[in-house]
Amino acid sequence: MAKIGNREKILCEGLKVVHARGFAGASVRDIVEAAGVPQGSFTNHFVSKEAFGLEILDRYFANSRVLMQETLLDLSRRPLARLRAYFAAHQARLRDGGMRYGCLFGNFTAESSDNSEVIRQKLMLIFAEMQHCFALCLQAARDAGELSAGLDCDDAAAFLVASMQGAVLLAKAQRSLAPLERLERIFLAMLQND
Amino acid sequence: MAKIGNREKILCEGLKVVHARGFAGASVRDIVEAAGVPQGSFTNHFVSKEAFGLEILDRYFANSRVLMQETLLDLSRRPLARLRAYFAAHQARLRDGGMRYGCLFGNFTAESSDNSEVIRQKLMLIFAEMQHCFALCLQAARDAGELSAGLDCDDAAAFLVASMQGAVLLAKAQRSLAPLERLERIFLAMLQND
Repeated sequence: MAKIGNREKILCEGLKVVHARGFAGASVRDIVEAAGVPQGSFTNHFVSKEAFGLEILDRYFANSRVLMQETLLDLSRRPLARLRAYFAAHQARLRDGGMRYGCLFGNFTAESSDNSEVIRQKLMLIFAEMQHCFALCLQAARDAGELSAGLDCDDAAAFLVASMQGAVLLAKAQRSLAPLERLERIFLAMLQND
Repeated sequence: MAKIGNREKILCEGLKVVHARGFAGASVRDIVEAAGVPQGSFTNHFVSKEAFGLEILDRYFANSRVLMQETLLDLSRRPLARLRAYFAAHQARLRDGGMRYGCLFGNFTAESSDNSEVIRQKLMLIFAEMQHCFALCLQAARDAGELSAGLDCDDAAAFLVASMQGAVLLAKAQRSLAPLERLERIFLAMLQND
């Protein structure tokens, strides 16, 4: 049990340290200190820092999946209301402390995707799943007649995934949610004009 | 003269190393090795790694300014043609080698803007100047009747700065220009629908 406890502490506290300082900026020493575990514990549980990086990406994405399930894929609401709920929940999450640190996926892409092929592949899968969830919601809106029948939902979803990353990045630089509010307003207007 | 030479080598080669490995990922030792100068040379020329970071941001932005001058602010072309020329030149620059490394401004924002207030302030100034150049081009297009008189040019320009960052980030993850081509197509269509 003690071993499982340390692994969990390293993942939980390590994710916070990496989110705040960056993957390269957070040393293994920083991570074990934050977790309050012996230095050797890291190498007992992870074959490399890269393996640890892959696990914290999964862990962070588990939260993103919950957020998408509760909004984009919540069939109790009408499709465009789901998309609006996603924007609101995402902004609320950033307002509650994530804004200074940005999106872990964006941060990893910026600093690590050229240095590690497995991390780049993981990030591609994550972005693809996010795009798929946006596309499902847009397709539902199209099928329900909320959006034009001619909308290319995959294209719009891919655009949204990228533009969300950019808006989170600018929000981080400016310490303001304005870029995310602007994206929401412009994207929803764009859908109506299509 | 020797001193000036070393400073220049550190900035020139150091920018490449930081662009490829990230600011935290590139150590002072990496930078002086790439520059082929003695380790002590770095501290002779820069009071801190942060001071060096600010200088390479200025140097990288000098290139961005030239690109904007030659496209967005080229009065010999009609305004929307200037914007298209900017997209084309920016994509060509990424195709010629920058795609794997992303945008230095985005990378710094992702990894360093929460760790250094002066770097965050510098990034805000850079993004603001880019937004201003986009806005000037859009205003010219509006005044020339190429775009609707009701277009909020500052708002559209701010959206474009953020979405460009996101598209470059996704291009880096996917090793493909598709996110940038999609942004160009969707943004130009959006302007026409306004």
